[in-house]
Formats: sequence, structure tokens, C-alpha cells
Amino acid sequence: MDKAKFIDVLSDSTGETAEKAVRAALLQYPDAGVQIRLHTRVRTPEVARPVLERAAREGALVVFTVVSPELREFVHASTAELNIEAIDLIGSLIVRLGTFLDREPINLPSAMLPLSEEYFRRIEAVEFAVKSDDGKEPRNFRRADIVLVGVSRTSKTPLSTLLAQRGLKVANLPLVLGVPPPLELMEAPQDRVIGLTIGIDQLCEIRQARLRQLGMPSETNYAMREHVRQELDYANRLFAAHPEWPVVDVTRRAIEETAVIILEHLKERDERAKVARSSLV
Amino acid sequence: MDKAKFIDVLSDSTGETAEKAVRAALLQYPDAGVQIRLHTRVRTPEVARPVLERAAREGALVVFTVVSPELREFVHASTAELNIEAIDLIGSLIVRLGTFLDREPINLPSAMLPLSEEYFRRIEAVEFAVKSDDGKEPRNFRRADIVLVGVSRTSKTPLSTLLAQRGLKVANLPLVLGVPPPLELMEAPQDRVIGLTIGIDQLCEIRQARLRQLGMPSETNYAMREHVRQELDYANRLFAAHPEWPVVDVTRRAIEETAVIILEHLKERDERAKVARSSLV
Repeated sequence: MDKAKFIDVLSDSTGETAEKAVRAALLQYPDAGVQIRLHTRVRTPEVARPVLERAAREGALVVFTVVSPELREFVHASTAELNIEAIDLIGSLIVRLGTFLDREPINLPSAMLPLSEEYFRRIEAVEFAVKSDDGKEPRNFRRADIVLVGVSRTSKTPLSTLLAQRGLKVANLPLVLGVPPPLELMEAPQDRVIGLTIGIDQLCEIRQARLRQLGMPSETNYAMREHVRQELDYANRLFAAHPEWPVVDVTRRAIEETAVIILEHLKERDERAKVARSSLV
Repeated sequence: MDKAKFIDVLSDSTGETAEKAVRAALLQYPDAGVQIRLHTRVRTPEVARPVLERAAREGALVVFTVVSPELREFVHASTAELNIEAIDLIGSLIVRLGTFLDREPINLPSAMLPLSEEYFRRIEAVEFAVKSDDGKEPRNFRRADIVLVGVSRTSKTPLSTLLAQRGLKVANLPLVLGVPPPLELMEAPQDRVIGLTIGIDQLCEIRQARLRQLGMPSETNYAMREHVRQELDYANRLFAAHPEWPVVDVTRRAIEETAVIILEHLKERDERAKVARSSLV
């Protein structure tokens, strides 16, 4: 067996960016059996040094995002002195942005910066999405930036919160065979409604797993192929009756990718609206 | 006025990592007036080329995360040929991880990789958090990894979904003056309960803003200083009666930072549990 390998991710803020980048790069080495150790809010040499010393002892790789130039310099010097493999993730990006923008960085960890208007918009959007989940607040459809509609298990909930974190107010509505959608759906701006669809095989699979998890028999209508087929048909007929709703197929897609596809639809919609406006002028 | 500056972020996947890294670095240059243009799922030279040509014309900076070595090579060659400022964010990270792990990368965009178990755990956690928001499912406290308790407007909802995206099942319960918490709170594993507190000035401010937003008079009890003080006292007395609950002060903290503080508490708790277990052996 290989010896365990460690990557120490060290950040003077939340470490989110560094961890995301490392995890994204690690996807290219599946089953590498490497363990990430996250060290967040490291803001002084006294806190950084023991982390680096252990990394040296254990032959760990150090990936760091340190905004303060003094601490960054200290980490650079220490990793050189201790002969540690180290990657400065954000340092060169900050320096090169400074050249590009022709400005001096303020050199403060992001957690110490004042909260922006955009931050509060994101928070509000997340609260909106949680309150407007699962068709609970049809009155909110009018105020939503996006209304996601689809049968049960088409990732409406995780998609809603993910898009909300980009500042979009998202409501979602489950389509259920035999239950007509509330009138509020037709009263919402129709260019904000997005249909979600999924292949029948994967949907049956997901629903059966869901029933097992809930300790329910798999012969429930919810997961029976004939019922699932009828429910998907019903959803697809509704989508066909509303050709202005983009329909996104979520089959075998991570929600992160579906979210990007939805954002691409919104961008196209906004560009079409811009063209329409300028041709009116 | 300065000429508008653009950063083209180009990714063969969702571009999330690249965008996060650029936004994190840009925080060091507030009001730089730079606009990020995101180009996602760029997977062929034919799609990449026009983006790069426009960047050249407009003097934009190009930041890219491209996993395929062929396309990465193409972007490198094109940016050199077109004389574009370019930053390869993930390329060198992937190459250096390969050296560290002594392995070959699989060279597939992450959106094309099979979904991991961890992915499904995250999705489930998000659904759990949305369903267990605002004390709606006290029965879920027993099954939760974390139960957040605090008065209204202590960021319980956005914190819950943020922590859920790390795979943690989070429930939350609002503390309301005069309403005793449900029995389920005391039946939950007490080392999973976390109290949230906040300074009275900021809380009054947030609640008044909230009322304005809802079009309600600011002399409502909800935002009156005396009432807010009593409610905070009530919460703090409850926390004092449960010294085993860590209490986190959210005053002037971004939810990302509060989330990291909570994760640090969990890590300490797990380490204490490990020590306790090994001293039993």
C-alpha cells in the first residue's frame, strides 16, 4: 500500500477558494488516496509555522492562499527553508491583477473586508429560495427571477439553493400527476419559468433508492415505471404547451453543470431582450 | 474616467473555481471597475478562439481553467500569438499535483466525470437543510449533524444551506421570546447544538431594515430595542444553561466566516472525542 499523502491547505481567510481549486485539480487523479487538511484563518507566523513543520516532517504538499504580503513572504521563506513542496495559489494572481489594473492591492484577508451589497443580495436570495421551495409559496412566483418546475427528483431543491447563492431569487414547483399547477404559475413572467426533465431509467432508479432510504416498499406508485412514465409525459406535455419555457435535461448531470446551463439560458434571454429593445428604438 | 477593463474567465467545466479565485483576488482591488465575463463549458478550439480574439481586441485579461492538455496548449499558444495577458489557474496545479502524487492525470473536464458518493451526500444534506429550516421539522434534530439555534436574523437559514453544501445535515430553530423550545431540542445529541448570538445594535438595525422591506412599521415589537434586548437575554440565558453548546457570535461576520468557525468547533469536538476514546482503551 502507498504511504498516506497529505495536502495542507493553508489560508488566512475561509480557505474556500483554495480548497475548491485543489479538489477540482484532484478530480484528475481519482482514487489518489490523498487527504486534504484545511487550516483556516491562519493570520500570524506563529500559527503558520507548526503547520509547515508538520508538513515538512510528513512530506505533505502545502497549497496556500495568503493575502497579507508579510505572511505570504514568511510562508515562502519557511517552505524554502524546510524544503517543502508548496504552491502559492493566489499570490501570483493578486500580483498579476495589480499589474493589469495598474493598482495597489489593499492586502487585507477577505474576511476582514466590509460586506458588500452583493453579499446581502445573495443572503436574501437564499432565504427566498428556502421559503419558496417545493411550491410552498406560489405567491412568490411573481417576484422570482427563476421558477423551476419538474416532477419529483429532478434536483429542484439543490438547484434552487445553488442558484440562490449567485444572488438569484429562485422558487420551485413540483409537477405531480393529476394535480394541476397553481394559477400563480401562469401569472408569473413566463420567460422566467424553466422546465426540468430527466430520463425515465434514471428517474425510476433515483425514486427507488429514495423509497429504500425512507424504508418504504419499492412497489409504491411513486417509483413504478408505468406511473413514472405517465408523470413524465404529463410534465413534457405541459412544457410543450409552453414553448417559451426553456427545458433542461438533468439526466446524469451534476447540479453544478445544470446550474451553468440555466445561467446560459438567462444570458441568452437577456441578450435577446436587449436586441428587441434596441430594434424598437 | 478609466476605460472599462474586462477579465475573460474561460473554463471547460462550470468555471466555478476560476470565478471564485478571481473574485477572491479582486477583493484586494476594491472599486477597480473591472467586469468579469464568464465562458463556461468551452471544450473546443473553435469555441475558445473567438473569445480569445475579442479579449485581444479589447485588451482583456484571460484567466483560464482548462483540463484537457490539448485545449490548454491551444489556449497557451493563442494567447502568446495574440499577445494577450493570460493566467493558467489550474494547469500548473494539475501538473504539480501529478508530480507530488506520482500519477498521470485523466485529463477529463470535471463535468464529464461520474458523480461521487460525496456528491450525493451533499445533495441529500441540502434537501435535509431546506426541509429542516426554521424549526419546521423538530423530529429531524435527532438525525442532524448540527442544530443551529438563535433568535430571528442571526443568519440561521443561509448558514444551514452553506454548511449543507459541505455534506452536513443541518437543522435550525428560531428562539422566540415567550415560546419555549420544543422538547426535541433536548433529545438531540447535545454536542451537535450550536448557539448563534449577535450584538444588539446590529440586530436592531437588521430587523428594522427587514421591516422596511416588508413594508411594516418600524415600531413593531420585533425591532424595538427593549424587546430585542429581552429576546437576546432569553437566548443567552438558554445558552448559559447549556454550557456544552458552543456559542458563535455572528456580529459583522460574513456567513462564510461563521461557517468556518462552526467547522473549527466540530473539528475540536471530534478531536476531543478521539482523545476520550483512546484514553478508554
